[in-house]
Amino acid sequence: MAVVVDFEGLRGDGVKHALDHVSALVADDLVKVNQVIVDKMDSPVALIPQLAGHIIAAGGKRLRPIMTLASSALCGYQGERHISLAACVEFIHTATLLHDDVVDDSDLRRGQDSAKAVWGNQASVLVGDFLFSRAFQLMVHDGSLRVLKILSDASATIAEGEVMQLMTTNDTETSEEAYMDVIRAKTAKLFAAASEIGAVVAERPATEAAALESYGTNFGIAFQLVDDVLDYSAEQTKLGKTIGDDFREGKITLPVVLAWRRGTDGERQFWRNTLETMEQSDGDLEEAIGLMNKYDTLTDTIERSRHYGAIARDSLGLFPDSEIKQALRDLIDFCIDRAY
Amino acid sequence: MAVVVDFEGLRGDGVKHALDHVSALVADDLVKVNQVIVDKMDSPVALIPQLAGHIIAAGGKRLRPIMTLASSALCGYQGERHISLAACVEFIHTATLLHDDVVDDSDLRRGQDSAKAVWGNQASVLVGDFLFSRAFQLMVHDGSLRVLKILSDASATIAEGEVMQLMTTNDTETSEEAYMDVIRAKTAKLFAAASEIGAVVAERPATEAAALESYGTNFGIAFQLVDDVLDYSAEQTKLGKTIGDDFREGKITLPVVLAWRRGTDGERQFWRNTLETMEQSDGDLEEAIGLMNKYDTLTDTIERSRHYGAIARDSLGLFPDSEIKQALRDLIDFCIDRAY
Repeated sequence: MAVVVDFEGLRGDGVKHALDHVSALVADDLVKVNQVIVDKMDSPVALIPQLAGHIIAAGGKRLRPIMTLASSALCGYQGERHISLAACVEFIHTATLLHDDVVDDSDLRRGQDSAKAVWGNQASVLVGDFLFSRAFQLMVHDGSLRVLKILSDASATIAEGEVMQLMTTNDTETSEEAYMDVIRAKTAKLFAAASEIGAVVAERPATEAAALESYGTNFGIAFQLVDDVLDYSAEQTKLGKTIGDDFREGKITLPVVLAWRRGTDGERQFWRNTLETMEQSDGDLEEAIGLMNKYDTLTDTIERSRHYGAIARDSLGLFPDSEIKQALRDLIDFCIDRAY
Repeated sequence: MAVVVDFEGLRGDGVKHALDHVSALVADDLVKVNQVIVDKMDSPVALIPQLAGHIIAAGGKRLRPIMTLASSALCGYQGERHISLAACVEFIHTATLLHDDVVDDSDLRRGQDSAKAVWGNQASVLVGDFLFSRAFQLMVHDGSLRVLKILSDASATIAEGEVMQLMTTNDTETSEEAYMDVIRAKTAKLFAAASEIGAVVAERPATEAAALESYGTNFGIAFQLVDDVLDYSAEQTKLGKTIGDDFREGKITLPVVLAWRRGTDGERQFWRNTLETMEQSDGDLEEAIGLMNKYDTLTDTIERSRHYGAIARDSLGLFPDSEIKQALRDLIDFCIDRAY
């Protein structure tokens, strides 16, 4: 399976180069990770590799396993354990994507038919369960209780975050604090775990493990904030991507939270109508974007993202300078700057 | 939380006594298991304990955790590890029930509204994921890689079994072999794991672990065969239970597999119409039961069940005689005889 890197939405070689650069630095490992993924998603039950292959081959940036590989490299790790553990991280991520598509009733994933659109909710739920179990089998084979703890804690937190998100859906009064709790749990926790594992396999001191966990957490928050902006970004439409998925699903993200808090009573009524009672008609998405622009909530969400990006950058401070360290720092800018 | 034991469908004190007897022998442990379940399904995300509490409190026989407790007692285990591991087993089982209800689109579970009927598919999928993750957190806390291997292997096999079942749904040509593969994976594997854990925590030799695994496997197969019969059993309707769920969902179970193989061309057309193309009308369920009775497929499924029950009984042969051993043997008859 070829390494598929999604460069859509990037502008300029400088930024494109950042993910390219990290990927290149761990290129040999990434090929091995992809091989483990293909080998381990296999099953005598044919539908499992078919469905899993669909979503895994559909691309995605492999950002989370790259985090594990890059943090292992940063810690000078020389062994092979990070390969299967990076595959675990991708399996857990893929399982959550399969379940997300069922929860969100999404027919598209990365611009292609989602697995649940092709095979239905039933298979998506069950193959998600399989990949999740398979991830734990791989971890058990690796044999580190510490890694098992990191990833089982992450999995429970992700599920909590997804349930929290479900509870804030259609709730226009969601606070910035509540929104941040959701994305810390549903997105940032897996980035944190993926990064921390590098220090664990390399048997580095606790301070380095904590530094990488912090890198992953803050990178993950920045990443999700930008993702939420991109869902309303006109730039995306120019590139042929759909926008407005969150709006149509009544999901409350930071650009909405800020627009609600900064808006007039009349504008709040608009948000209630469209996102709480879900009475949406033509032009409502454009009006929503108009209100976000009126109050600069998209650009301010990017500003919030920069704050977390800065923390992620500093978290790497105690590692000696190296090419991989610089690449991991550049990756933060890559994630934030894809909004432009 | 009280220990809820479902005695519906039982006839006569002798049989009722069997589950009662095992439960009584591990009663103190079962109280502790229920406490761990209540404590560990908690989360700051309120919907999680609400929904998990609904399905866990709704009863069920706690058969699987009882297997872990009873097999630990059979092995003379004196510690406390079996308590949290029995709770793990119940969490994994509950997670699969939550996902099953979504997959089967079932609004009823044990005669009450299913969680997905009350809270919807979304929450059921996500809380299932949470309970599954929580089970692994408990196992990691226990710290045995061997137990982690047993239960992660079981979880992957269960998911495979569920996908296999999905693929045989609406396929009237499903062979007995294929049906057996499904129930070995989706049902028997967790019983096997639950039982084997008793020997593992007690640090008994591999032969005893294998014997208990065999007990669980064969007990689980017998249990599922009888469950499939009960879905067509007139006795159930007398007790106020609904029948025909499998029929309405187009699930192919052994009573159907046998009726198809023993039937005429005309009868096979009936099965195709009702279970493949799902053109069901009033009286079809009764006609299906009529065909099963014509060919004795319900009683013969029970006969098949007795075969596995006999293997389960013999698998305990190498353990010295004891009250718990006799109770575990009687439990086999309990499970088979509830069909009458």
